[in-house]
Amino acid sequence: MKKSKKSALQETGGISISEITSTNSIEKLKKKRNAKIDTESLITSILNKDITALSRAITLVESKNPKHLKKANIIIKGCLPHANKSIRIGITGVPGVGKSTFIETFGKYLTNLGKRVAVLAIDPSSSITKGSILGDKTRMEALVQDENAYIRPSASGDTLGGVARKTRETITLCESAGFDVIIIETVGVGQSETTVHSMVDFFLLLKLAGAGDELQGIKRGIIEMADAIAINKADGDNLKAANLAKTEFTRALHLYPAKDSNWQPKVTICSAVENNGIDTIWGIISDYIETTTKNKHFSVKRNEQNKYWLIQTIEEKLKSNFFNQSKIKCELKKQLELIENNKTTPFAAADFLLNL
Amino acid sequence: MKKSKKSALQETGGISISEITSTNSIEKLKKKRNAKIDTESLITSILNKDITALSRAITLVESKNPKHLKKANIIIKGCLPHANKSIRIGITGVPGVGKSTFIETFGKYLTNLGKRVAVLAIDPSSSITKGSILGDKTRMEALVQDENAYIRPSASGDTLGGVARKTRETITLCESAGFDVIIIETVGVGQSETTVHSMVDFFLLLKLAGAGDELQGIKRGIIEMADAIAINKADGDNLKAANLAKTEFTRALHLYPAKDSNWQPKVTICSAVENNGIDTIWGIISDYIETTTKNKHFSVKRNEQNKYWLIQTIEEKLKSNFFNQSKIKCELKKQLELIENNKTTPFAAADFLLNL
Repeated sequence: MKKSKKSALQETGGISISEITSTNSIEKLKKKRNAKIDTESLITSILNKDITALSRAITLVESKNPKHLKKANIIIKGCLPHANKSIRIGITGVPGVGKSTFIETFGKYLTNLGKRVAVLAIDPSSSITKGSILGDKTRMEALVQDENAYIRPSASGDTLGGVARKTRETITLCESAGFDVIIIETVGVGQSETTVHSMVDFFLLLKLAGAGDELQGIKRGIIEMADAIAINKADGDNLKAANLAKTEFTRALHLYPAKDSNWQPKVTICSAVENNGIDTIWGIISDYIETTTKNKHFSVKRNEQNKYWLIQTIEEKLKSNFFNQSKIKCELKKQLELIENNKTTPFAAADFLLNL
Repeated sequence: MKKSKKSALQETGGISISEITSTNSIEKLKKKRNAKIDTESLITSILNKDITALSRAITLVESKNPKHLKKANIIIKGCLPHANKSIRIGITGVPGVGKSTFIETFGKYLTNLGKRVAVLAIDPSSSITKGSILGDKTRMEALVQDENAYIRPSASGDTLGGVARKTRETITLCESAGFDVIIIETVGVGQSETTVHSMVDFFLLLKLAGAGDELQGIKRGIIEMADAIAINKADGDNLKAANLAKTEFTRALHLYPAKDSNWQPKVTICSAVENNGIDTIWGIISDYIETTTKNKHFSVKRNEQNKYWLIQTIEEKLKSNFFNQSKIKCELKKQLELIENNKTTPFAAADFLLNL
């Protein structure tokens, strides 16, 4: 190992220094390369509401490089005591319901109240389509230009669990950077609503008035999760239908069992385009925060969510650790064939695989 | 180990032989005690439709004694090639819908057609209440006395997974004993419908006509699972309301997305008490079997169910193996406290516990 290398392939000198690569600029380049990301100063900057530092930290969180993740963990740990102070709002709705316009109007309403607003997104499909629902920031031009708003396109990832972790950690970073309201948008694909629901304080469902939409389009279970339903595009000719839908949903919601929070979900109408009813929605959310803070449900829910994510993460890892073993992959295939041919039962096969 | 025992506690003689305990009967008793459960002959008897043998095998399946379970596994393996030939029907509905009466009337209808019918039940609550929905066999007196029917009270167990395994294995045994139709009743508590749905070919939802019942009482997702909805107690004054409910449900079902099986769920009315509409329900089921056999969905579904149970069993074991370690239990508690005090994140805590 300590042999001195002598090889014709090694060059020890002889490269001419061109004008561009002057000794000076080489030194600068070396310095830049060596400059390690200083986690301590990054934490301080985040706590000082430095958006560039926040973005850098989020990039570390989203990185696949283990070195970056190690740094990300240090930063998150440093930020943790300063987090947890925002209101986390999840917003969902089928495509076409006007989520972007709503978030822009709602976000502007909040910044006008003096609040600092961060907008994140969970988009499990982005890992497939390589797109991102918030990638096209031009959809929220006014909010992008607002210095009290921070819009971060959705983290991509191979698993919803991975995306969820990144988003959760991004919430922590945003909270430490002093954002009062964190809005998390979901596209309503796959399990994304459940994922978002399990990391927010308040879950808002945007709906459209109109035949069929009440039952179709919307996945079952979503209405159950909603703390409020806002019927959007309640303007012009649509106003009457929106009010009708409001009555219908209010009636339907009363048939659902009461929530643990003792909160009776509210139904309201709004028009994001005409900036109508946005104040009512914020009123509902404020009511909710007050009610659940009083009855302690607010913190109970956050603790439950934390526990859920802890257990969820462990279970996901246990499964992937087991099923990703090449031996298991191979034997699993064989056992499935045996089951198909009535040579074994699923339970005996499971016992066999677990004993490998 | 080979020491000769000499103890004052041992009696070597002196007991008077009463008339009842004659030498002959003592010998018989000894033989009986020593007679080990012969798995080979049990399998043969089951295949010969011997109900006593079937019941003994099911008792082995349900036993908690590892020796019994080992024997159960041998018997199941021996029966497997002869199983898989029945039609498995799941029946659910809220308490009061008339499940027992329905199953009795339906069962008698089938035995009159010359079919052999086994009735099982999944009742996850029985482990808590120590009761069993089919324990009170007097509720199905006519069916109990029918020699072509076999009613087995619900297996109890600590976990729904355990109950499910026992029920699945009982199905295998019943099928090997030549039963053509296996009916599995569920009480509609907790996850029991999902469990039953994942082990039957056809899922029948019993309903009552009447206000509110359409939305209340019934858990969301159940309607989605149903291959047919039968509105029971459609007799007397109730007939009109039942027909109305039928129209409503038919309309509602059309709004749901089409199933993989290409089967459009049917809605019908019946009166188990008056023995009306039972033939229609059997007609629907027969239709379903024909359609799904033609389009191969029948066997595809069974294979998917097997795969589901294989994966499900492995995952459940992985989790319980991990979380039941006393070290993990202790550290989990500590990590949850750290999370609650903002000292760590759920993800960092998960990493920590997994690395223990």
